[in-house]
Amino acid sequence: MGLVVQKFGGTSVGSVEKIKKVAERIARTRAEGHSVVVTVSAMGKSTDELVALAEEISDRPAQREMDVLLTTGEQVSIALLSMALMEKGAKAHPMTGWQAGIKTDPIHGKARIEHIDTANLRKSLDRGEVVVVAGFQGVSPDGEITTLGRGGSDTTAVALAAALEADRCEIYTDVTGVFTADPRMAPKAGKLSEISYEEMLELANLGAGVLHPRSVECAMTHGVPLVVRSSFVEEEGTWVKEAEGMEEELNVRGVAHDLEVARMKVVGLPNRTESLTLLFNKLADASINVDMIVTSEHDDERIDVAFSVHENEWEQASQVIQDHQEELDYLRVLSETGLAKVSVVGAGMVTNPGVAAKTFTSLSEAGIRIKMVSTSEIKISCVIAKEEAVKAVQELHTVFGLDVEELATVGS
Amino acid sequence: MGLVVQKFGGTSVGSVEKIKKVAERIARTRAEGHSVVVTVSAMGKSTDELVALAEEISDRPAQREMDVLLTTGEQVSIALLSMALMEKGAKAHPMTGWQAGIKTDPIHGKARIEHIDTANLRKSLDRGEVVVVAGFQGVSPDGEITTLGRGGSDTTAVALAAALEADRCEIYTDVTGVFTADPRMAPKAGKLSEISYEEMLELANLGAGVLHPRSVECAMTHGVPLVVRSSFVEEEGTWVKEAEGMEEELNVRGVAHDLEVARMKVVGLPNRTESLTLLFNKLADASINVDMIVTSEHDDERIDVAFSVHENEWEQASQVIQDHQEELDYLRVLSETGLAKVSVVGAGMVTNPGVAAKTFTSLSEAGIRIKMVSTSEIKISCVIAKEEAVKAVQELHTVFGLDVEELATVGS
Repeated sequence: MGLVVQKFGGTSVGSVEKIKKVAERIARTRAEGHSVVVTVSAMGKSTDELVALAEEISDRPAQREMDVLLTTGEQVSIALLSMALMEKGAKAHPMTGWQAGIKTDPIHGKARIEHIDTANLRKSLDRGEVVVVAGFQGVSPDGEITTLGRGGSDTTAVALAAALEADRCEIYTDVTGVFTADPRMAPKAGKLSEISYEEMLELANLGAGVLHPRSVECAMTHGVPLVVRSSFVEEEGTWVKEAEGMEEELNVRGVAHDLEVARMKVVGLPNRTESLTLLFNKLADASINVDMIVTSEHDDERIDVAFSVHENEWEQASQVIQDHQEELDYLRVLSETGLAKVSVVGAGMVTNPGVAAKTFTSLSEAGIRIKMVSTSEIKISCVIAKEEAVKAVQELHTVFGLDVEELATVGS
Repeated sequence: MGLVVQKFGGTSVGSVEKIKKVAERIARTRAEGHSVVVTVSAMGKSTDELVALAEEISDRPAQREMDVLLTTGEQVSIALLSMALMEKGAKAHPMTGWQAGIKTDPIHGKARIEHIDTANLRKSLDRGEVVVVAGFQGVSPDGEITTLGRGGSDTTAVALAAALEADRCEIYTDVTGVFTADPRMAPKAGKLSEISYEEMLELANLGAGVLHPRSVECAMTHGVPLVVRSSFVEEEGTWVKEAEGMEEELNVRGVAHDLEVARMKVVGLPNRTESLTLLFNKLADASINVDMIVTSEHDDERIDVAFSVHENEWEQASQVIQDHQEELDYLRVLSETGLAKVSVVGAGMVTNPGVAAKTFTSLSEAGIRIKMVSTSEIKISCVIAKEEAVKAVQELHTVFGLDVEELATVGS
């Protein structure tokens, strides 16, 4: 008898039939005696359709207007899901972001939740209703409709769970949990029964794609136990929680990959602290996310700086660097696309210095050239050629003892 | 240099191309130096599509949930129209019902506007923005999303004009104005340049369909000058305003019709006041709208009561009367469908007692049998067989001197 927050993504509510299935699942949780708050995304491709409409009108539609437009998608979902719940005999209450008291900052398109005023939510729960909250949206201090940006519905779910001090937050998706690697790339990948926030955060940031990094961050900050499981298959999912008390035997928890990586190398920057500051400030001003950074000496007076960016952003990054040639005073700039990043992640790694060596050895024995390396306490990432990514993931998955005997099954 | 409220219906914003056209028109009004508040409906058939989704889930979807669902249609329109206005270089501000301060009672599906808190609207106007308000919607005292029911966007426009003390309210639609009769039925119908609130109210109630009766009522109560004109054709529309100062020469302003009429006759009710009260209370309890009522003596102790209802409601009305046979104590009940109502409307009529006689004479000379009659100070309505409606409308249109020489033109 507790309070459970459940989140269903766009594919889980992609059709009327699926919405009815979701309603059944919620009604089951309700029937077990739990209070339930549900967060839903927009139905399937409906957000894409709205974006297409906007693009017919404007090449660069204003962000406030986009937020007004896109939030209708989740509003449709909460209305239909509430109707479906009532058909199953459950009391339900649909709430948009502003009705659920989700207060954000005023940054349209990627707002952050500042506070949740739970009065309305609590009143509804006290009446025994399933509260069905539109994900991905909130209201700014000026009373404008905002959206949380990509993966925002996960964040809504976790923030609601934190604000309501829920017993757990269940993220329903189209896979059965978090895997040791992407089963499409590593057929011997297995589902993890649990993983720590820190590990999940690395995996989320590394492109595992099951959970949005911000939602994991929020869960970690507030200690909300998360479980990732399938909307379609009845099967235990993966728990994401405090590392404490978790069996620490496994050094490496999983192998992640990112297939859209580009690398830039700025050769011969003046060897002054300001040079690096200036370079990365220029890139930040252009909203370019720099991932891995490696510096090395060029000669006594100059240094070389290599960094990786998302493939989508390398052209813009090149442009920024060229535009400031004079100010930055470098010798030349090189860039390379068609790269991938493979990473081994695991909290046990910090006490096992052998992991890095083992990673490098196994890649080089497989004939894979490592172009860049970056490490943290719980991950080692290597940039390699994109066409070698599958081989690298499988190799590392085997070397670190993650392979399972039978083939992994992933929900439809 | 004044404040103008403009309303564009679903067909006017039915596609991206049409939305761009509407934006041009608004930008023109803005360029003339006026402040502009715009109300829009949902795009074309989008409301029907949402209703269809709901019906896939539930035979009788709850009204609160329907309101959450349907209001997304107008929200999409305000976002897209605001984007289109910005493309034309106009500052715009989209507002949903709750953002525009439109407070209604809590009757979902047919809420009434109780009050408009204009603070947000005024702030936006002061910034020189075109305020783009979602029609048809508001917020209840409990903070729930409500809809105003059929024709609600007209009412939103007029209520905004009243609350903001606008100089005029322009209703853009797919016809060029209010006609002396439906041009599809009476090819010689002409456009009126002006009409009084009272006349328009009768025409609206009689099914002319250009304006919703509630919006006319609201305009009359607050003295808001209304103009009905085409979204697509550059042409003067029809002004709806105070009768005072209007040329009163025309006895009859127009001929309206309603092709979906049924008649019930309850024969031999006890001749007591309570009988009528009981009968019409039973019908009201079942939400059946009774239109015309005629009573006559049956014998010394009993009376006959005939009344007309919308064709959609006659089966239910029959059922109600049969269900209460014992209590109502009548002899038998007769019903007839396939009827129409034709009405002549005009404020000048009240001082011209000849109008009724002329109406009856011209219909009977055309061989049309009148089955029921009802009169008010400014209208005479006759129920006739549906197949004679076109002939009746044309006959009355000619007899009262409304025919124009050239064929009337109606906007695309």
